[in-house]
This record gives sequence, C-alpha cells and structure tokens, in this order.
Amino acid sequence: MDNESDERIRRQRALQRGFEQAPMRQTTGMVLHYDDRGSAVFEMPFKPELTHALGDTHGGFISALIDNAGWFTAAAHYDFLVNTLEYNVKLLERAKKETLIGKGKIIRVGKNFATTDMEVKSESGRLIAVGTGTFSVTTVPFDF
Amino acid sequence: MDNESDERIRRQRALQRGFEQAPMRQTTGMVLHYDDRGSAVFEMPFKPELTHALGDTHGGFISALIDNAGWFTAAAHYDFLVNTLEYNVKLLERAKKETLIGKGKIIRVGKNFATTDMEVKSESGRLIAVGTGTFSVTTVPFDF
Amino acid sequence: MDNESDERIRRQRALQRGFEQAPMRQTTGMVLHYDDRGSAVFEMPFKPELTHALGDTHGGFISALIDNAGWFTAAAHYDFLVNTLEYNVKLLERAKKETLIGKGKIIRVGKNFATTDMEVKSESGRLIAVGTGTFSVTTVPFDF
Amino acid sequence: MDNESDERIRRQRALQRGFEQAPMRQTTGMVLHYDDRGSAVFEMPFKPELTHALGDTHGGFISALIDNAGWFTAAAHYDFLVNTLEYNVKLLERAKKETLIGKGKIIRVGKNFATTDMEVKSESGRLIAVGTGTFSVTTVPFDF
Repeated sequence: MDNESDERIRRQRALQRGFEQAPMRQTTGMVLHYDDRGSAVFEMPFKPELTHALGDTHGGFISALIDNAGWFTAAAHYDFLVNTLEYNVKLLERAKKETLIGKGKIIRVGKNFATTDMEVKSESGRLIAVGTGTFSVTTVPFDF
Repeated sequence: MDNESDERIRRQRALQRGFEQAPMRQTTGMVLHYDDRGSAVFEMPFKPELTHALGDTHGGFISALIDNAGWFTAAAHYDFLVNTLEYNVKLLERAKKETLIGKGKIIRVGKNFATTDMEVKSESGRLIAVGTGTFSVTTVPFDF
Repeated sequence: MDNESDERIRRQRALQRGFEQAPMRQTTGMVLHYDDRGSAVFEMPFKPELTHALGDTHGGFISALIDNAGWFTAAAHYDFLVNTLEYNVKLLERAKKETLIGKGKIIRVGKNFATTDMEVKSESGRLIAVGTGTFSVTTVPFDF
Repeated sequence: MDNESDERIRRQRALQRGFEQAPMRQTTGMVLHYDDRGSAVFEMPFKPELTHALGDTHGGFISALIDNAGWFTAAAHYDFLVNTLEYNVKLLERAKKETLIGKGKIIRVGKNFATTDMEVKSESGRLIAVGTGTFSVTTVPFDF
C-alpha cells in the first residue's frame, strides 16, 4: 500500500469517528463504512420516525443519504475540509419500509473541486435514488 | 374568491392536516403553513439532534425542507397526488444554529408536470439554500 | 438475439436516420452511432464556428452533446416518443480544440420515465463534462 | 451612480464587445445586452440550422442560452474571470419556431462563487426553459 492510500485510509477512519459523534447519526440511525474502492457507504435501517404521512421513508432522508455519501467520499481525498456546493437527487422508486444504503463514487478529484455520483439502494437491491454533487476544497486543514 | 381558489385552499388545509400526522414532522420539528400566494412555508426550529459533527444543522435536513417546500406547493394545485421526480439543492451559507424557513414557489403548473423553485432562509434573513424541482401528476386521486 | 433487442436495434437505426436529417447536425458536425451496450455515442469534431471568445468549444455545445447523448439513448428503449424533462451538466475541464465524444447510459428504464447519465470526453481521453437527465414517455408512437 | 455600478457597467460593455467576437455568436445568431437590473439578456432569432429533425429549435441551443445568460450575468460582478461549474436545465415547453430570449438573474454574489437563475422565454411570452447555475471565481484578472 502506497503512502497516498495510507493517508486516505487514515482520513477515512477519522471521518468515521467524526460521524459517530454527529447528533444526526442517532436521529437517522445511519452507520458509515468505507468500501475497498474508497466509497463512503451509509446504511440507514428503516425507522418509523423518518416516514411521511403515507408510511414510507421521507425523501428528505434519502437526500441526507445522497448528501452524506457524496461528502464523505469526497472528503477522504483531501488534506483540507470540503464544502458541499450543490447536488441533485432523482427519486426513482418508493423507499417503502426497507433499510436503505447510500454510496458515493468519485467522478473527479481536482485541485479545487471534487465531483461525485451517489446512489441509494434498498436492501432488496432496488435502485431508489441517484444524484451527483460538487464539492469545493477549502483552506481549513482536515484535523479530526 | 373563485371556485378554483376555494378548491386550492381546501387542499392546502388537507395537506396541512396530513403533514401533522407525518412522523418525520415530530423528528424534524417542521411546521407547515401556506402563505396567501399559495407557497408552502415550513419552519424548522434549531434542534441539536439534527446537527452534524461540527454543530450546524445537517445539509440533509436543509434538503428535506427544499423537498417539502416544493412538493407541498405543487401538490395543492392538483386533484391527483404528485410524485417528486427530481430536485437540485445549492447550499449557499452555513445554517448555523438558527430556525430555518423553507418556501416553495410555482414556476409552472402543467397538465402532467409541475415545476417549482424553493429557498431556505434563516430566521435572521440569510439565504441558506435554493433549489428547483420537477413533480409528475399521478392518476391517484387526492382524497386526504 | 431476442426480439426485444431486435426491436431496439431497429429503433436505433431509425433514430440514426432521423438524426442525419436534423439541420443542427450539419451546424454542429455531430455524428451518431450506438455502441453494443445500447449507448448513443455522438462525435463532434472541433469546429471554430462553435467556439467562445477565448477559442474553446462553447459550453452550450457541450450541453448539446449531453442532451443528445441522453435523449437518443433513452429514446431507443420505447415504442413512443420521449420528451426531455430536465438535465444537469457539470463542466469539469476545458474542451480546448479537441474532438468531443458524448455518450449516454441508462440508469433506469421505467414505464413512464427514463433516467440516464451522460459524459463528454475529449478524443485524448480527458473527462470534459458529466450530466444526468430525466425523460418522460409520451403517447406519441415512435414511427420514424 | 456609485463607483461599484460604474465598474459593473464598464465590465458589461467589455463583455458585450467580447461576445461580439465569439464565433459561436455568428453560428447561433445570439445578440447580448444587459438590462438595467444587471441581467444579461440574449436574443436568438429562429434559425432553421439550429433545429432538430422535428423542426423545432434543438434543446442544446436552449441550453446554450441558459449557459450564456448565467455566465454573462455572473461575470459582470467580478474583477476576475468566472468558470461555469455546473447548471441544470428544465425544458418546459416546445421552442417551436420563435425567437428565444434567455435572461440571467443573480441569486448570490459571494467571494468565491456566484449563483444565478436563468430563464428562456419565446418572443410570444411562453416560458420555454429555466435553470440555475454555479460559477467559481478564478484568479485570472478580467481584462477584456
């Protein structure tokens, strides 16, 4: 394993520890790990507290998965904090009452900007949502 | 007031009642009303449970405001349920620890699709996020 | 080859013939083929007439590639015409004076909507732009 | 008129001169002016060379209007060149064979990023397309 990868894995672990302390983690029940391709993967078990009036998981939490999947994938590539500039979400299927898994993937890691795509699948393998995002690299050192 | 407006206000009240029963309402603390121009307006007081590791309201809940502001604005215009096809979110400023107000506005009400724009402001008046969304009109009658 | 594929290839050929008659084809110099995975692939040689004041291919034509790549990929999957509802474009690198290749890929083929992602690369392999799009299926028969 | 406005108007004129030299201007027939609220306004007369196989102005040129309307509106606010990071386009109505007018509007002028919304109307007043875009401020001085 080269130094670049070492460094990225160190950052992934720091980001996981950071996320474990995020209050929204308890509220949403999301659990973060990184896969061996460097994608941030968030699992969110079905929780009745996160549903809309018709009983499915509310789209806002699907967006929160999209948002997190992109940001945590991008953030592990830089020595500085990144900011989410924008993202889009396409809602493809009803979430129903399933565990949802959000995953990010790098499209481009530039000097000043990162671009990712994201997907949310149900545990039964249905593709629930996709998105893409743009992140700017700040001058604030990453020092979790 | 013409019949068309009467009907829209009847639907707005039904949508408000529906939202009050949504479990995600309790979790997020969002409160819905409609303004006199037909915009769905969601107020979300600051809640520590909705913050990320750095202490601000997590972007996912800003998206949930964008999502709701668009859907509830669009939904009041149709006799049938609408589905959110897609939306985009641009995060402009840090949410900090303020009450956030999400608001939708109709761009176009078509036969098969509605288009809205949405904004999220802080109670101090800062523009936190903007977005636009596309909603499809289903054949499921609106019968709240 | 099954009947479904036969039918798709018949439609691909009809779409190619249709595109050859599109006046914008001459103006932009785009050439369309389908690859063996069903992606519409558009090649657009560098043309000085399509540049902005700084000498690169104008972003609008990169969007035209994104637009075409998505629409022609989606359209081949349906017996009815599809409409482009929306798409997004992220511009990642300068186009410079290279031939550009736009390519679509299906994310989802639903009954009423298709979702695609698109990319534009330069002939030297640089990733110039990416996008995703949503297309609605109309009731107008595809009868090219 | 304050100095800030003077400076913006000087830049608007420089941007107009710059655009007049853009080869894509001849190809598309677009004409640029700025209105008194600082919006870049592009008029594009109907040209058969810009149509798709069904005879309407091709969506790619509607995107080119959206792109230009945003970029030229944003660019006039900075002493440095801006880059288009991304934009989205929603196609609302058929363009038909009408002159199209694209217009940008500032949502936010930040230190490092500008955000705009854009619309394209037909000369008969139909709303053809809307979009929003994000632009980054570079360190390259604006010296047209």
